[in-house]
Amino acid sequence: MNAPKERLVVIGGDAAGMSAASQARKRRPASDLEIVAFERGQHVSYSACGIPYLVAGDVAEPDALVARHPAEFLKLDIDVRLSTEVVAIDLDRRAVTVRSAAGESSLGFDQLVIATGGVPTRPEVPGSLSVGIHGVQNLEDGIRLLGYLDRHRPERAVVVGGGYIGLEMAEAMLRRGLDVTLVDASEQPMRTLDPDMGGLIADALRAEGVTLRLGERLEGFASKAGRVTAVHTTGGEIPADLVILGLGSRPSSDLARAAGIGVGTTGGIQTDRRMRTSAEGVWAAGDCVETFHLVSQRPVAIALGTHANKQGRAVGINIGGGYATFPGVVGTAVSKLCGTEVARTGLSTAEAAAAGFSAYSVTTESTTRAGYYPGARKIKTKIIAERITGRLLGAQIVGEEGAAKRIDALAVALWHGMTVEEMTSLDLSYAPPFAPVWDPVLIAARKAAEALGSNS
Amino acid sequence: MNAPKERLVVIGGDAAGMSAASQARKRRPASDLEIVAFERGQHVSYSACGIPYLVAGDVAEPDALVARHPAEFLKLDIDVRLSTEVVAIDLDRRAVTVRSAAGESSLGFDQLVIATGGVPTRPEVPGSLSVGIHGVQNLEDGIRLLGYLDRHRPERAVVVGGGYIGLEMAEAMLRRGLDVTLVDASEQPMRTLDPDMGGLIADALRAEGVTLRLGERLEGFASKAGRVTAVHTTGGEIPADLVILGLGSRPSSDLARAAGIGVGTTGGIQTDRRMRTSAEGVWAAGDCVETFHLVSQRPVAIALGTHANKQGRAVGINIGGGYATFPGVVGTAVSKLCGTEVARTGLSTAEAAAAGFSAYSVTTESTTRAGYYPGARKIKTKIIAERITGRLLGAQIVGEEGAAKRIDALAVALWHGMTVEEMTSLDLSYAPPFAPVWDPVLIAARKAAEALGSNS
Repeated sequence: MNAPKERLVVIGGDAAGMSAASQARKRRPASDLEIVAFERGQHVSYSACGIPYLVAGDVAEPDALVARHPAEFLKLDIDVRLSTEVVAIDLDRRAVTVRSAAGESSLGFDQLVIATGGVPTRPEVPGSLSVGIHGVQNLEDGIRLLGYLDRHRPERAVVVGGGYIGLEMAEAMLRRGLDVTLVDASEQPMRTLDPDMGGLIADALRAEGVTLRLGERLEGFASKAGRVTAVHTTGGEIPADLVILGLGSRPSSDLARAAGIGVGTTGGIQTDRRMRTSAEGVWAAGDCVETFHLVSQRPVAIALGTHANKQGRAVGINIGGGYATFPGVVGTAVSKLCGTEVARTGLSTAEAAAAGFSAYSVTTESTTRAGYYPGARKIKTKIIAERITGRLLGAQIVGEEGAAKRIDALAVALWHGMTVEEMTSLDLSYAPPFAPVWDPVLIAARKAAEALGSNS
Repeated sequence: MNAPKERLVVIGGDAAGMSAASQARKRRPASDLEIVAFERGQHVSYSACGIPYLVAGDVAEPDALVARHPAEFLKLDIDVRLSTEVVAIDLDRRAVTVRSAAGESSLGFDQLVIATGGVPTRPEVPGSLSVGIHGVQNLEDGIRLLGYLDRHRPERAVVVGGGYIGLEMAEAMLRRGLDVTLVDASEQPMRTLDPDMGGLIADALRAEGVTLRLGERLEGFASKAGRVTAVHTTGGEIPADLVILGLGSRPSSDLARAAGIGVGTTGGIQTDRRMRTSAEGVWAAGDCVETFHLVSQRPVAIALGTHANKQGRAVGINIGGGYATFPGVVGTAVSKLCGTEVARTGLSTAEAAAAGFSAYSVTTESTTRAGYYPGARKIKTKIIAERITGRLLGAQIVGEEGAAKRIDALAVALWHGMTVEEMTSLDLSYAPPFAPVWDPVLIAARKAAEALGSNS
């Protein structure tokens, strides 16, 4: 057999990287394209978003989060090398430098995919390396946390950071029977929501038994014999025998930047619609890139598995000789905290203002099913629209079971730049077990359309 | 007080008519517009779609289905006259002739809203007037059926017609403990679905214990002492002590036609986007009209409460001096049969062919949540797309809890004439409790996009 014509090197073996590898392989056989994927951790192709549910006990074992094992990739002639970190990209020599237990070596590439993911934010405060302080960025983190929980049976958990991961971890700790305190520097959890909608999440957290310490900045950790005993904030001391960091992440773009590949103002690697970076034959996908926000029309860096998968797929199709694009995002996200569902799409009121829109908003209350139908639950829908034009700019939903997935209809409407008046005619599904005769989305659009006059 | 400048007469007091009346009143006070609504039944403004759930026992009493009572309308200076039927419209004299227990009389109008609803299909077969044969068109029908169930404790119900109402009534009868047989002339229930998807509904019905008699035409009813004892079909005799007719309805347009108002080929009253009929100052809304199908670009008559509400609202806003339109429908519908959810939007394969499209379809299986997340349920999604262009033409979903409402994202995509390739990029919400990392809608779009090449 002749050597393959080209070699594809993939840096990072999670959603984006392995989607790219798989799609490229679908279109180009091993005789044409050699594929080598480097992963510095011990797992590839797993659902990072599933970690809170693994820790909560909803998911029986870490392996359930793994979509495909290295052996499965090997069958596809995709050579996955675990515990191997790429430490440099040399664009002139067209080679990467890799480091593993076996030492340092170099491997040439024709095509390169950078899928290095995100770098979790670690607080720069005293004591932050104490035992019992856990990140939940990757599957190893999740396994490590499970081990800590089993060995040490902590009783008081402090979650630092009130974003999606923070809240999901707060729920996980509640479900495991721990006392849970949530610390956030802002006055509300879920800063991606408007304050009034975030306030509903605060209420829900309190109702579930979480102690909220809002508007308090982290100052450090106290420890005893190297193990965390308390969290210090601007509001005082909080006893803790487990701390979970949910402070978000930034794009892992240092490797790319060092190689001279374009990195944007968001810190994410810049790409075009086909996910090509500024360097010939070098592609990027996943949490390490910045993408285009279709509403603000500005670059954003959003770490989300669904974007990573789509971007990786596009990269693989393009390397495979096909044509696929990732045109951007509208900022959709969804989460669940015990019985409370929360979703958002588009711009918040603050984001709309920052992007230069003059916006108004309308919040409506309704039910997830016909009011008379058993199981009808509360749903609150907020719509943010542009003044004068009535164009939809964003939407937020907080409610109970059956509420949050309605954000999808709003996300598609947003994708098409619909006005709230146009949206009132949308042919959304209706039957008593699924919606009131006016779906909450339509009620919200109607109220926003009616309020346009007084906001013009 | 001077007499109002104009009088609005509304024919029909359900969703469409009373929405029109309420919206007109919002914009024009009683001093400017007198509003009189005639309803030949004894209830106004109720949810006809809720009747199966009333009969099943999910809804405690008929009154729970009533959104607003006549007394509430009276407070808004809307004069509702129950048990009063409009029997003629005289466009020259601009007056309606009404009939009630008090006899016949006439009332002039300046504006007229025709909201006469639908005429239920009654089979033209021997014995169809026997006691124990029930329609479920309006609230009186539902109350009558409840009374019959209480008084006669029937044990064997035969439901004739396998559409939405038929299936919902089959479930209602199952839930009340009756033996249920469903008769339909076609080879599958839910003829608005493709046969393969309708077949899944047949399977679900059988699994719930419903006896299916498909491909059998109704020939008549046997009765004893005037009460039904059996249903005769082309397939034989089915013993029955209760028969429920779910044969659909046609637009109630005879009154309009007799007055010389334009009625279309569908049998529905023709209107423009603002819901104006062919006669000056005469509007129509609800099950009695035909509307524009945005995909087939042909008129259709679809009896659905959500359309009736929107159309009625548009009429009322327009009469009130505002501007509102009903641009048409994409044919979205949803229903639930015990644990099985079903939804559709756009054109079925047969409808696409009838409208002149050359279409192909792809069916995909997925789960409602991440596969590893507790409560993940099966969902099957079928996409019908145009050959060559890949434009979405329709979609159908059959699945378990959490499946059906996903049709809304597809309905909005359809509204905008998206191609399946474009849809693969949609920013739909993702988190493990709500979807796999590729939402079933995105998986379906992706597979349809991948299949386009071999269908071009």
